[in-house]
Amino acid sequence: MFIELDLQSEVPLYKQLADQLVEGIASGTLSPGQPLPSVRTLAADLGINLHTVNKAYQALKQDGFLEIHRKQGVIVQPGSQPSADEAFRQRLQRDLRPLAAESVARGMSEADLLELLRTLYRQIQNPPSKGGTSS
Amino acid sequence: MFIELDLQSEVPLYKQLADQLVEGIASGTLSPGQPLPSVRTLAADLGINLHTVNKAYQALKQDGFLEIHRKQGVIVQPGSQPSADEAFRQRLQRDLRPLAAESVARGMSEADLLELLRTLYRQIQNPPSKGGTSS
Repeated sequence: MFIELDLQSEVPLYKQLADQLVEGIASGTLSPGQPLPSVRTLAADLGINLHTVNKAYQALKQDGFLEIHRKQGVIVQPGSQPSADEAFRQRLQRDLRPLAAESVARGMSEADLLELLRTLYRQIQNPPSKGGTSS
Repeated sequence: MFIELDLQSEVPLYKQLADQLVEGIASGTLSPGQPLPSVRTLAADLGINLHTVNKAYQALKQDGFLEIHRKQGVIVQPGSQPSADEAFRQRLQRDLRPLAAESVARGMSEADLLELLRTLYRQIQNPPSKGGTSS
């Protein structure tokens, strides 16, 4: 899986990394039970601090997307992925709210905003590399 | 306008404040040209650091939502609000992407996610306090 970090971004590196791993799981690029590089290896590959990788892994472990074993190392949750439970929906609403507000303030139409989100959802669920809609 | 900050949240205070001011502009609670409290007054009212308020005001000034004058103080942009330009759309996509990805990973349907965003957009554009849909 190809991870790309933007060192200029205001988004913290550990969050960029965690987000991309979740997107890998969402798109099926990362499959259940698949091993991930160790903290040390991934940090070296990406040229970032060990703590940054560890923070991302720990956050995803806490959310239930990854498992961290002493011997097996880090693997994608082999069982069922975490669900869209009430806690997630509340966090989602909290995070979407300022984006919706700024869209309204800037005069972006509801249809325009929804179309943008729809396109992203479909791109993630069915990325071009999986084939399907690219032909 | 009523500002509510969550000191336990992982969202930085300055961002919470800026987000709520933008939502005030989006909903019409804050009108063009309306004066806002000085940095000092707002910091005292909210019980937070001067720098936090200043950071929020400066960010909104940079985006074009506020004007900061030496004598008039801080006012809501009296002219036209910033538009949904290409830079905004790119930032919006960047911020929506991890939310869409996590929704897919957690098995939330596209319809469910879009409905959530639609509801937020409408709540912000036409809040109950403005009347209209509340009866």
